[in-house]
Amino acid sequence: MTSRTPGIHGVVPPVVTPLTPDGQVDTHSLEKLVAFLIDGGVNALFALGSSGEVAYLTDQQQATVLDVITGAAAGQVPVLAGVIETTTNKVIERAHAAAAQGVDALVATAPFYTRTHPTEIDRHFRLIAAAVDLPLFAYDIPVCVNNKLDRSLIMSLARDGVLAGVKDSSGDDVSFRRLAIDLRELPGFALLTGHEVVVDAMLLGGADGCVPGLGNVDPHGYRRLQDAADRGDWAAAKAEQDRLAELFDIVLAADPADSSGTAAGLGAFKTALRARGVIAHNTVSPPMRPLDEQEAKAITGILDRAGLM
Amino acid sequence: MTSRTPGIHGVVPPVVTPLTPDGQVDTHSLEKLVAFLIDGGVNALFALGSSGEVAYLTDQQQATVLDVITGAAAGQVPVLAGVIETTTNKVIERAHAAAAQGVDALVATAPFYTRTHPTEIDRHFRLIAAAVDLPLFAYDIPVCVNNKLDRSLIMSLARDGVLAGVKDSSGDDVSFRRLAIDLRELPGFALLTGHEVVVDAMLLGGADGCVPGLGNVDPHGYRRLQDAADRGDWAAAKAEQDRLAELFDIVLAADPADSSGTAAGLGAFKTALRARGVIAHNTVSPPMRPLDEQEAKAITGILDRAGLM
Amino acid sequence: MTSRTPGIHGVVPPVVTPLTPDGQVDTHSLEKLVAFLIDGGVNALFALGSSGEVAYLTDQQQATVLDVITGAAAGQVPVLAGVIETTTNKVIERAHAAAAQGVDALVATAPFYTRTHPTEIDRHFRLIAAAVDLPLFAYDIPVCVNNKLDRSLIMSLARDGVLAGVKDSSGDDVSFRRLAIDLRELPGFALLTGHEVVVDAMLLGGADGCVPGLGNVDPHGYRRLQDAADRGDWAAAKAEQDRLAELFDIVLAADPADSSGTAAGLGAFKTALRARGVIAHNTVSPPMRPLDEQEAKAITGILDRAGLM
Amino acid sequence: MTSRTPGIHGVVPPVVTPLTPDGQVDTHSLEKLVAFLIDGGVNALFALGSSGEVAYLTDQQQATVLDVITGAAAGQVPVLAGVIETTTNKVIERAHAAAAQGVDALVATAPFYTRTHPTEIDRHFRLIAAAVDLPLFAYDIPVCVNNKLDRSLIMSLARDGVLAGVKDSSGDDVSFRRLAIDLRELPGFALLTGHEVVVDAMLLGGADGCVPGLGNVDPHGYRRLQDAADRGDWAAAKAEQDRLAELFDIVLAADPADSSGTAAGLGAFKTALRARGVIAHNTVSPPMRPLDEQEAKAITGILDRAGLM
Repeated sequence: MTSRTPGIHGVVPPVVTPLTPDGQVDTHSLEKLVAFLIDGGVNALFALGSSGEVAYLTDQQQATVLDVITGAAAGQVPVLAGVIETTTNKVIERAHAAAAQGVDALVATAPFYTRTHPTEIDRHFRLIAAAVDLPLFAYDIPVCVNNKLDRSLIMSLARDGVLAGVKDSSGDDVSFRRLAIDLRELPGFALLTGHEVVVDAMLLGGADGCVPGLGNVDPHGYRRLQDAADRGDWAAAKAEQDRLAELFDIVLAADPADSSGTAAGLGAFKTALRARGVIAHNTVSPPMRPLDEQEAKAITGILDRAGLM
Repeated sequence: MTSRTPGIHGVVPPVVTPLTPDGQVDTHSLEKLVAFLIDGGVNALFALGSSGEVAYLTDQQQATVLDVITGAAAGQVPVLAGVIETTTNKVIERAHAAAAQGVDALVATAPFYTRTHPTEIDRHFRLIAAAVDLPLFAYDIPVCVNNKLDRSLIMSLARDGVLAGVKDSSGDDVSFRRLAIDLRELPGFALLTGHEVVVDAMLLGGADGCVPGLGNVDPHGYRRLQDAADRGDWAAAKAEQDRLAELFDIVLAADPADSSGTAAGLGAFKTALRARGVIAHNTVSPPMRPLDEQEAKAITGILDRAGLM
Repeated sequence: MTSRTPGIHGVVPPVVTPLTPDGQVDTHSLEKLVAFLIDGGVNALFALGSSGEVAYLTDQQQATVLDVITGAAAGQVPVLAGVIETTTNKVIERAHAAAAQGVDALVATAPFYTRTHPTEIDRHFRLIAAAVDLPLFAYDIPVCVNNKLDRSLIMSLARDGVLAGVKDSSGDDVSFRRLAIDLRELPGFALLTGHEVVVDAMLLGGADGCVPGLGNVDPHGYRRLQDAADRGDWAAAKAEQDRLAELFDIVLAADPADSSGTAAGLGAFKTALRARGVIAHNTVSPPMRPLDEQEAKAITGILDRAGLM
Repeated sequence: MTSRTPGIHGVVPPVVTPLTPDGQVDTHSLEKLVAFLIDGGVNALFALGSSGEVAYLTDQQQATVLDVITGAAAGQVPVLAGVIETTTNKVIERAHAAAAQGVDALVATAPFYTRTHPTEIDRHFRLIAAAVDLPLFAYDIPVCVNNKLDRSLIMSLARDGVLAGVKDSSGDDVSFRRLAIDLRELPGFALLTGHEVVVDAMLLGGADGCVPGLGNVDPHGYRRLQDAADRGDWAAAKAEQDRLAELFDIVLAADPADSSGTAAGLGAFKTALRARGVIAHNTVSPPMRPLDEQEAKAITGILDRAGLM
């Protein structure tokens, strides 16, 4: 497995998808964002994740995103592509499309919208892996799909070579820690955490890397955090993480009276990237609304205090 | 609104999608099923609902289903089409496709997979309705999308002509009853219940019709139930419903050790339709497994006791 | 079982617990309330239920409530007592106390606060029933205890004479309907619904009675509803229920910005009873706040429109 | 606040409550357990927590537990007492009883069983703190009480001197980390984690100590873990935690077909303590069942591999 996924560890930001004011993929901004992230020292790019607005993008938009990101990455770092669809056949169809566009690995969740079962989730990942010749990551995100991937299920799929890694956004710390211990026997398997405000703690606990949405805004910070952890300087890792945790307060800028958590988070990342001069607009997909100028000002203030302006 | 949705009341089964053993849409069986349902006296057909396996069907399969159902219905009853996608733009894209295939109305849920907000759900339905010139039904199914549609939200959308009806699978009886009372002011609005084992109670409470998955198996029974309710013979309606409630035990035939509730339910409906000679196979989409012969035998036994063999 | 619980069917309001402004049980108001309910034609009284503020009352207060209610009922109608504690031994201790005060039946939930298991829930009810010589009702209220009582569990306990009845507040309409059908074999078993705005529908579906919190405010209305259902006049039952459903809007009077649903509901019932001259104060237990005069005015307006002032 | 809670940091095990085979508190075993824990180097004892079976113990049993623990501790380490009741007045009543028995601090949850509201939770803690002159800890355990304590609520209560600390079992890593950062301004406030398999990570993230149920079985291990963290040797802390995480597998010994997670966990801790010669029986309270000899053997095997036999 290791040989199939060189480089899928460390800092792997879920790349946001910049949009033009009329809702099209802003390809120029996306190219600039990819360059910004690679300059920031990220190890790989995760396209079409939740932070990439995948649940909001049409087939055509998703194809455009992969086209721009793989083009801009140009082999400097691997590109993982989310293939987020409700069930197996639909995931496989999308996986074939992504593979044809030259991505390096795929990321799929358990089935969603419909009720499912552990034996069905097992079959789901096996069928996807059998259909597409790319490393497959499981995306463990119960808040979106209503199911937690069991440790025993992941280990079975890992040992059988079905999965090359896991992106864990489950919040189940017991399962994560025990998984990290069990995975010592499979050194090529990549255990990535999506919990961006406790990356230091997750790395200490055995994670191989992180998938921080906030890494779009401050890739250099996550690079320093990862480097400190890699050399065992946990005090430095913690200090960097604490700084990033305070920066994460930008997601609280949107008025909760008319913004979902998704809109607040994506809106904040895009608004911060606009403020930093990386992308042109903070547009988000419908039915979300973009952050307004007052909310943007709060975000600029936080960026300023973090020394990012 | 009434004029836009003539006939969308009464018995509106969510049509299951028969598959061939290799997983293709079994068009011949689907044609026979449509004929069986129309013969059973249904008022309309709901294609591509949860019972229609919509979450499992590829774009091409969904197009085939609409093609066959609209063709077989041939204008005898209206056809509603589920446009089940995670967010607004994706729903609209699918809605245009369905409209082009000649369906009579559309059924959409709140956004799912992603976290959303009441103001976003409101915008979601308004954007869909503005984009497609067909009556729009809201599908209120929190178990799939993690959000209940508020009564005030539905009333606002109903009064503004955004929604032509609701299919309620929420299980929130307080909200449903109060909605039924509020909707007296909008007589053309269709309030349909998805709670197939208490249709008599829901009709008494003010529902305009039902969307019973079990109606695939016994449309004549739901016809008699609806007719009894329409003429105010609640004792007869209850007796028919009690019979159907016992028939619904077919969904318990599958071994829960390796079947989801979805697989158990869809598998049971298809197995029963096969036993009744309506469709050719009980195949379900991956990652579900079909019911085996022992499970099928349990279902045949229940059908037999219900006088349906 | 029937012989042990004569009269536990029909209208069984969960009696609210009037408090004085300093938070003591207002015994005089409670006596007046019991008289009001018996005059309204209720079939039994349920003391120390959720509407009785049981989760808020100290041991001494609970004893006072039972003392006043059994005294005021004076054998005219049976008195059920909630014995709401986290686990078995604590329930049994409270059950002994209630039995010593002369109540006619007990109502217990599944264990709560702690995680539990179906086999433990089964043992829980069997141990309680073995310890106390009074009819035992199971209170099925997942929203409070995080577990739904399975139909098979209830049937097993019913057939073994462990349970004399169920108060269902689960909202699981499939389970309720099938339970009603299965229970035909046990005519003395009492299946009571807590879903107060759809009592007509639940009675049609097979319930033996109802436990409406709103029955504190308008017992005469629930009496008429039950009588209409008993004589098979479902149109009249529905009309009465629709009226009561609109009356139930009093629970929406409290500002949700600083009131829980519990505070809004209990506060509304008490405020309405005060407005109707039955009890003296609308005080609720800490940490809830009482409804203020503006909220009370909204309630008076609803009562007025309902012809209850 | 600091002066009120000397010593409430570091390793604070939630002391299990040994029982005799007939279900009484096994006072001799409990005394031995307290001595074992103090010998193991714990910083304080948490009596009547979830691991202390508090939800299962009668008033008399709870009094016995506090009597034995405070007596055996004899001032060597502080004793915190859980005051776990559904709502305010009941908590206060229990808090007075605990205070009279000489405990050093109290631990209370948000209201449970009943629905509640942030403003009510705020009032709840303020009323408890005003009623009893002991340091008050908030127990943040959404899995039991269905509500997460907001960071802003905790900070407000901390700044106002209402709370002396928090025991966090919420699993919300974002909230925990930001709370740890905010709490730098209140150095006397104790932030304790209940997540026993990631204590190293939580200490790195800013926790002041831990409340590990597994600390009953291996207090010396948690002492070494805490000491390593205190001196900044995170590699040693991680190694110790990894060992403890594997030891935690004892909670998987019980057959899930007839054991709740609570029974499996408490049963495992007691069975392990019996195997280590600390307590006499592995009895648990009804309706839980004790682990059988086969399950006990599995636990002994794990203890053996961990070098604890």
